[in-house]
Amino acid sequence: MTEPSHWLPLTEENVRKAYDIIKPYIHHTPVLTSKTLNRIASSPQTTTDGQLPAAAQPKINLFFKCENYQRIGAFKVRGAFHAVLRLVQEMGEEDVRKRGLVTHSSGNHAQALALVAQTLNIPAYIVMPTISIPSKIAGTKSYGARVIFSGSTSQEREAIVERVIQETSAILVPPYEHPDVILGQGTAGLELAEQVSELVAKRPELSVHTPHTAARSGGGGGGGGAVLDAVITPLGGGGLTSGTATFFSESPATRVFGAEPSFEGGDDCRRGLAQGKRIETVKTLTIADGLRTPVGVIPWSVISDPRKVNGVYAVTEAQIKDAMRLVLERMKVVIEPSAAVPLAVVLYNEEFRRVVEKEGGEEGWNIGVVFSGGNTTVDVIGKLFADN
Amino acid sequence: MTEPSHWLPLTEENVRKAYDIIKPYIHHTPVLTSKTLNRIASSPQTTTDGQLPAAAQPKINLFFKCENYQRIGAFKVRGAFHAVLRLVQEMGEEDVRKRGLVTHSSGNHAQALALVAQTLNIPAYIVMPTISIPSKIAGTKSYGARVIFSGSTSQEREAIVERVIQETSAILVPPYEHPDVILGQGTAGLELAEQVSELVAKRPELSVHTPHTAARSGGGGGGGGAVLDAVITPLGGGGLTSGTATFFSESPATRVFGAEPSFEGGDDCRRGLAQGKRIETVKTLTIADGLRTPVGVIPWSVISDPRKVNGVYAVTEAQIKDAMRLVLERMKVVIEPSAAVPLAVVLYNEEFRRVVEKEGGEEGWNIGVVFSGGNTTVDVIGKLFADN
Repeated sequence: MTEPSHWLPLTEENVRKAYDIIKPYIHHTPVLTSKTLNRIASSPQTTTDGQLPAAAQPKINLFFKCENYQRIGAFKVRGAFHAVLRLVQEMGEEDVRKRGLVTHSSGNHAQALALVAQTLNIPAYIVMPTISIPSKIAGTKSYGARVIFSGSTSQEREAIVERVIQETSAILVPPYEHPDVILGQGTAGLELAEQVSELVAKRPELSVHTPHTAARSGGGGGGGGAVLDAVITPLGGGGLTSGTATFFSESPATRVFGAEPSFEGGDDCRRGLAQGKRIETVKTLTIADGLRTPVGVIPWSVISDPRKVNGVYAVTEAQIKDAMRLVLERMKVVIEPSAAVPLAVVLYNEEFRRVVEKEGGEEGWNIGVVFSGGNTTVDVIGKLFADN
Repeated sequence: MTEPSHWLPLTEENVRKAYDIIKPYIHHTPVLTSKTLNRIASSPQTTTDGQLPAAAQPKINLFFKCENYQRIGAFKVRGAFHAVLRLVQEMGEEDVRKRGLVTHSSGNHAQALALVAQTLNIPAYIVMPTISIPSKIAGTKSYGARVIFSGSTSQEREAIVERVIQETSAILVPPYEHPDVILGQGTAGLELAEQVSELVAKRPELSVHTPHTAARSGGGGGGGGAVLDAVITPLGGGGLTSGTATFFSESPATRVFGAEPSFEGGDDCRRGLAQGKRIETVKTLTIADGLRTPVGVIPWSVISDPRKVNGVYAVTEAQIKDAMRLVLERMKVVIEPSAAVPLAVVLYNEEFRRVVEKEGGEEGWNIGVVFSGGNTTVDVIGKLFADN
């Protein structure tokens, strides 16, 4: 990857530059809305585990950025294309092709890098945990990458990556621990802001309010006033959350939140923020399999900045499943469990809902929710919901 | 319903008139395309039951009309709105409201009529088989209709409907056995033809060929030449297939096909066509629960006319599941099993594929596939794929 001395600063402008670089290679994914989901989000909630008191009643309109319809079925191609195209700019195509690329990933970054490598005709070695979803392993192999299996913790994966680098001199393209990756992921937020502004200009009834202008708003709204009061993304390694926060860092009217699974301590970033120090290891087998890793050092530097990220909230496995069920059954859209975590926060995390109720007031909030990916199978869905 | 003396003839023009009437009440659903599905459809196929010899290799581009994103999650609102709005025109709102509406349905027509009744403020009684999908029963009740349970055969349902009519003088809105219903369902074909023409005008690479003009083409293509070589719809009672065939009856370049489940004789229409006589009863528990009824008398009058419908093909339960799995996992779109039947024919019915191979030749066919509905649940999906 590019050396620290060549790292780009994490700024809105550099997200825009990243977008210019990757645009020809990625899909412009749709933003969907749902009256049914808006109604549910704006009503007091209970879940199947019966944990919640019916309490906060915020007013919420939702805008779903459907990265499940992105190439390889997840946002990860944004960061991967940006990182490798920058690498090619810096080192030259020949050198990169001679050395090859390597990474470790539970699935979507693996497929993303495999696609990038195939597109740019570069060899790729992908280290995947043996317990990865079979469809993600098959997807990775289908792009012609070499898959090497490892244990499921970050340490186990990284050890295998080290070995591959020693044997092949391949260049590591990490899933989130690099500014180029983070800037690439931030382009989902850029598109979301532009699309929501366009959508609301055509159909003002989709917004809870008229666009905020002047003092409260920045560039995030695509020139006009900011329409989005908040954007919430899944948070695992933190690439998507920190990229999104980077893009909206000049738009104070649009708050950015992260969403984590609480199962077996998967909410390491939320806990780290509470104690003022990043938690470096986590071992959870949450159903949100894309969010099992601890937040990275560079993402943490953005997420722990309260001017950039307003908060991180966690939800239970039951809440993630309830949210995923609503998306499949009501919106008829297939997302993977990790992608359901932000919606679960919006619907079921009382702490988050009280913030919206208080800050949004009678007007309410327009909330952008990033559906990060859709790589699941009917078998996984069957098992997830078998015991309900 | 309107009396036979006031019945509208089944013509393309009357589908257009139906569209003008129902347009304010329905969603304009999207047409999706999928490179992956086009590639699969254009390759020799095998299925999980291993029944197929790898044989026909037609060239196919698919255009999916997503009625799973229609109101109540299925095309059925088109026919129901048209039938009831016509009834109100003929009898006056007061009279219809005094008597109320009644119907029998395994699910989607039930929800459709319940929505229509709620929208127009008319009481509705819905007779549903006790074995209906729970989400469809809940959906029907949520629109304020009274649900009355029956056995699952057509005869059992119709007996209960008769009793309701005697007790309440409610007016029967049948799920498919009326021209107004059929004309309403035909509007899905109208939108599909227009949307595909617009789509291909913008992105010519989506079509296997340039639009057919003059001699081969009629009005179906929305003014220009016909882009669609064929449209295929699920076939249960036959409302959707006969409505679609009515719309394309002036467009000889666009062939219309029906798709049935073969399980336990569910392919009654295909068998009826083979023997030259409609089969009046069928008792199948195919997973395509919307297609368990025999084709109706009026739909049959259209479908058995070879100038209007080019053929009806059947597929196995395993083939339906394989098609549904592809749509969920590759397109990330939720459809119900009935909606997967036409795609299953396109992918796995060798007889159909040989027709496309022969008639389409090297150029191939653009095929419109109607995703008729998306009303399923994660529990149903789990059970369907549990033994795979």
